[in-house]
Amino acid sequence: MKKHNFSAGPCILPQEVFEKSAQAVLNFNDSGLSILEISHRSKDFVAVMDEARALALELLGLENKGYQALFLQGGASMEFLRVPNNLMKIGGKAAYLDTGTWASGAIKEAKNFGETQIVASSKSENYNHIPKNFLIPEDANYFHCTSNNTIFGTQMKSFPETKIPVVCDMSSDIFSRQLDFSKFDLIYAGAQKNMGPAGVTLVVLKEEILGKTERNIPSILDYQKHISAESMYNTPPVFAVYTSLLTMKWLKNLGGISAIEQINIAKAKLLYDEIDRNPLFEGTAKTEDRSNMNATFLLKDNSHTEIFDKMWKEAGISGLPGHRSVGGYRASMYNALPLESIQVLVDVMQELRFKI
Amino acid sequence: MKKHNFSAGPCILPQEVFEKSAQAVLNFNDSGLSILEISHRSKDFVAVMDEARALALELLGLENKGYQALFLQGGASMEFLRVPNNLMKIGGKAAYLDTGTWASGAIKEAKNFGETQIVASSKSENYNHIPKNFLIPEDANYFHCTSNNTIFGTQMKSFPETKIPVVCDMSSDIFSRQLDFSKFDLIYAGAQKNMGPAGVTLVVLKEEILGKTERNIPSILDYQKHISAESMYNTPPVFAVYTSLLTMKWLKNLGGISAIEQINIAKAKLLYDEIDRNPLFEGTAKTEDRSNMNATFLLKDNSHTEIFDKMWKEAGISGLPGHRSVGGYRASMYNALPLESIQVLVDVMQELRFKI
Repeated sequence: MKKHNFSAGPCILPQEVFEKSAQAVLNFNDSGLSILEISHRSKDFVAVMDEARALALELLGLENKGYQALFLQGGASMEFLRVPNNLMKIGGKAAYLDTGTWASGAIKEAKNFGETQIVASSKSENYNHIPKNFLIPEDANYFHCTSNNTIFGTQMKSFPETKIPVVCDMSSDIFSRQLDFSKFDLIYAGAQKNMGPAGVTLVVLKEEILGKTERNIPSILDYQKHISAESMYNTPPVFAVYTSLLTMKWLKNLGGISAIEQINIAKAKLLYDEIDRNPLFEGTAKTEDRSNMNATFLLKDNSHTEIFDKMWKEAGISGLPGHRSVGGYRASMYNALPLESIQVLVDVMQELRFKI
Repeated sequence: MKKHNFSAGPCILPQEVFEKSAQAVLNFNDSGLSILEISHRSKDFVAVMDEARALALELLGLENKGYQALFLQGGASMEFLRVPNNLMKIGGKAAYLDTGTWASGAIKEAKNFGETQIVASSKSENYNHIPKNFLIPEDANYFHCTSNNTIFGTQMKSFPETKIPVVCDMSSDIFSRQLDFSKFDLIYAGAQKNMGPAGVTLVVLKEEILGKTERNIPSILDYQKHISAESMYNTPPVFAVYTSLLTMKWLKNLGGISAIEQINIAKAKLLYDEIDRNPLFEGTAKTEDRSNMNATFLLKDNSHTEIFDKMWKEAGISGLPGHRSVGGYRASMYNALPLESIQVLVDVMQELRFKI
């Protein structure tokens, strides 16, 4: 039985992507070679990398606006380090919004480079909301935020206006909703939610923000070196880039970000409506900041846990337990998760009322 | 027609690995889920990571000797940075052997951290040999060398004795020959030659060498943090780790490193004998330092290039052109390349004598 995969990441990707990437492992582009055994300098793979870089910009509406797209290694955690290395001046400072575990990780790395001002934090309320109405110091070298928090189920619905460069970790909601992406100067995202398999990170940045720190940046951390090398400064993660390209093509064929956004809104509404209507459950994130990617919720009465867990497992659902720091349940509803899977979960939640 | 793949890397892997990893992309462990959509914290993947870490140590004969195996991201180029970060003391120094492009890259990054002494270099002779009889300063924090050079076709046949920790970049010959690996304190290797697909790096290190620099190491670069997290400090490159495990299992079933070493010796002998016997060709690396992984050779008369290139392409050979900094040809003979492929190349080299 095909599972209803609510995993928070790595997570479900489109079925056609699984099929095409499995085929490429056996015989890539009908070359008689596996995608795993070809040189990254081969004509066929250079074409993959070029197309992936171009399509990432196209999906975000950032072509011909001075942006570059890179496919790097190390996950968002490596970008926590690359960002201050490339953007924080010696003796400079940076401004960070603290909305949870990932934001905190980014802040920790930035502190090694210089003054790191936390403009606001929702830590004291276990990150159940997104802080608002904070001030961004204009003498900071950049402002950093995290658009979606997978653990606490919160999502930034708007972004502050500021004159300084805006950096955003969009790992868990990139390509899921329409934003004016040109308001961001640097966007990064680990692939393993809406873009592809674990093992590659998309970095999209405005080239003009680079080269201003006078820092001696280690080569492998230097965005400019990766740009000059057309994202092949060293051997890229070939398979992960190819599978990301397949996923981006699937999204383009579907109608791009504006089309998937409508589907994602419908999916989230279906689930949140049930959470709010069903007296057995409650959501953990503040309503106005609820994530359309990760819905976090609790059973009001813990004695129902055993039966509920049995029911959703029998329905073919996987990946529903919440993160250990929140408990309860987390339904991740990334781009590739069909509405049908949400309906199965909602049906189980409704049935629970008749089983207890 | 299945190709004879002499690519320098990413390169050929065993056919059964391609088949099993393609299957896992469709349905991993008969779970109904793709290997690309499962959580890295799932029981099934934790088992993969644990087995891969244990098997790497087992193949190298390093179990129960104080070593840890990690599967990280960023390629060898990232380890160029991690090594001095973790091992060079503040105000300390490091000793490096310069045997080519990759060694030079490692030296460049180390210089950002402190005094980096080049104990010997073959640069002035375009790295056509491995320097010998050099002195390693005992006040250095570690000695770094590169066991095999893919570009110039050289390989270290012996390693210097020293009291300081020995670090070795074995990216292009790991798992290809038996060495006393316990003489090394830290070994790293990008997977994309003998271990798996591009996108993961094996690091094997003696835990006791860590924690001596008093440096503030960024989290993602800190080997100790990766060890504490059992190589899951952040989301690992799931597919690349799994495919590396499949490749290591294939090697173990074949009889391990000592078995493949005999095959590799036979493969290299077959080709080098032809290079030496055939009056149309000459090798570029000094005979005593010739790599059993990458044979570099030239046509003595460039006017034969066109016909030779046509002949090997017609024979189904791919990936034979040499690196741009050396020219000529490079036959990479990694573990998974069958002797039969070498024989096809040798046959073409012999036939060339009758075609000109």
